[in-house]
Amino acid sequence: MSESYYVIGVDMGGTNTAIGIVDARGRIFYRSKISTTDYSSGEEYAEALGAAINDLAANVKSKIKGIGMGVPNGNMNNGTIEKAANIPWAKTVTVPLAAMITSKTGFPCKLTNDANAAALGEMIYGSAKGMKDFIVITLGTGLGSGIVSNGQLVVGHDGFAGELGHVTIIRHNGRTCGCGRTGCLETYASATGVARTARELLELNPAKKSTLREIVYRPVTSEDVFEAAKKGDAIALETFDFTGKILGEALSDFVACTSPQAIILFGGLAHSGDFLLKPLQEAMDNQILNVFKGKTKIIISQLNNAEAAILGASALAWEE
Amino acid sequence: MSESYYVIGVDMGGTNTAIGIVDARGRIFYRSKISTTDYSSGEEYAEALGAAINDLAANVKSKIKGIGMGVPNGNMNNGTIEKAANIPWAKTVTVPLAAMITSKTGFPCKLTNDANAAALGEMIYGSAKGMKDFIVITLGTGLGSGIVSNGQLVVGHDGFAGELGHVTIIRHNGRTCGCGRTGCLETYASATGVARTARELLELNPAKKSTLREIVYRPVTSEDVFEAAKKGDAIALETFDFTGKILGEALSDFVACTSPQAIILFGGLAHSGDFLLKPLQEAMDNQILNVFKGKTKIIISQLNNAEAAILGASALAWEE
Repeated sequence: MSESYYVIGVDMGGTNTAIGIVDARGRIFYRSKISTTDYSSGEEYAEALGAAINDLAANVKSKIKGIGMGVPNGNMNNGTIEKAANIPWAKTVTVPLAAMITSKTGFPCKLTNDANAAALGEMIYGSAKGMKDFIVITLGTGLGSGIVSNGQLVVGHDGFAGELGHVTIIRHNGRTCGCGRTGCLETYASATGVARTARELLELNPAKKSTLREIVYRPVTSEDVFEAAKKGDAIALETFDFTGKILGEALSDFVACTSPQAIILFGGLAHSGDFLLKPLQEAMDNQILNVFKGKTKIIISQLNNAEAAILGASALAWEE
Repeated sequence: MSESYYVIGVDMGGTNTAIGIVDARGRIFYRSKISTTDYSSGEEYAEALGAAINDLAANVKSKIKGIGMGVPNGNMNNGTIEKAANIPWAKTVTVPLAAMITSKTGFPCKLTNDANAAALGEMIYGSAKGMKDFIVITLGTGLGSGIVSNGQLVVGHDGFAGELGHVTIIRHNGRTCGCGRTGCLETYASATGVARTARELLELNPAKKSTLREIVYRPVTSEDVFEAAKKGDAIALETFDFTGKILGEALSDFVACTSPQAIILFGGLAHSGDFLLKPLQEAMDNQILNVFKGKTKIIISQLNNAEAAILGASALAWEE
């Protein structure tokens, strides 16, 4: 390591928390991890994380610019993790995690949620380099989003903006969502949504042959649907057509809102190739307001999936 | 006029262009106007507007910070008016109006569309003073919007962001919109949309009594519906219930996107009182994602309607 500066990226997952030291070109030099859940309080977790960071950074302490964290229900405005359903020590409380980590390590610390971290990662290391207006859509179990406008994350007055997965896309008889409402975009456009669509189509078309019917000991997953689509399975292809169309229509609305130069799709489902992209692009071309036609590129994230979460989080620390 | 600085606000309407000199507290000192349409080219219009500005500013020239203009299809990124359907000399071309006005007057000049100007007006002189995240919705013939995030207008990569009137709110069998698509929010939530809803309800409920049926020599307007609602007319009340519900559902989606501290409603229809506000707030309370519940205030613009357009435009000039 030479004259340059480094940042520390922390990716808090539901099981483990991964830590990495990252340079300005997005290379991860040192890594470490701790459990996310083995603690009875936020204070205990912060103690363990602070110690792990201090160990990892011991040799390059003077060159560290700061720490960036991607955490579930992270509030960037005030550096807290708020009522995160899957984190035992933060389930019902608000923990001022950024301030706690600063006090353990001496480094400035910022945090935000995973999708916002992904957006910063794309801007600093990925496909959105040099862009000032873009949206990252993460297609995982749910649909997350990070919106960048004028070169800045849109976090809103309360720090929670960018919940595009919970825009209502089907207003009547929509699918039930984990949020307690119905018709949310993520109940259709996500790995879970794809599996749900396939299962619905199988049930609604009992006469249609599909290799997906052979999966009987466990629920059909989005990976099953992708594999079946590659073999030309009609139900699988119809599933992707439906998903792409719904997502394309939703993206047209998002373009009318913030007019991004690009929308970057991130996560496993984004790598479904033309099965997803073709109907998505078709729906956008049909549906988008004239003034925006052909202007917004759809890009598949090129960031290494395994590293993206640490990189995205670390990007926050360059933001000072 | 004392030591302080002034800006010039220019409001380009479909018929006339109004000009005003404005102080930092939003008081308009001098006014003037020219025709918008009596010219055969953008150059001729710029010549006339430049001359009118120079006349008006003659006595305070050294105290003018700059010119802000609100123009139809104004592109803030590059200071142009682009293919504005209702402006004869800009119908099919792109005119670099801001640069032309600077060359005629010597003052820096910025322009944007009416709804963005309204948003800046609210931020600098109106209900959004001190807010960094809010949305202004203008309810006129159509529905316009200006989105502010992190204290900056969201204009997007091409300068045309904030077309919330053209978000699709009814996906199947939606109303035909002037933009050539169907189901756009502004076909329901606008003065035109209210009149359209009332006419539909009258037709669909032939047995229901309504004073609106007495209007036979001209089409029913949104003002007619408001007057009838005040007298308890069932069709008129149902019209506002329907409009408020649709707008409230749309606003819930917009909150999920940029999480504004407030949404400010502007324009004649915004002054329909509880007829509109009650069903709107009810729909928002029912529909909004839990994390945003009760956080975003709905505010009716308090800016004097006659002055707001000049004030909003002038606000651009403080932005340097």
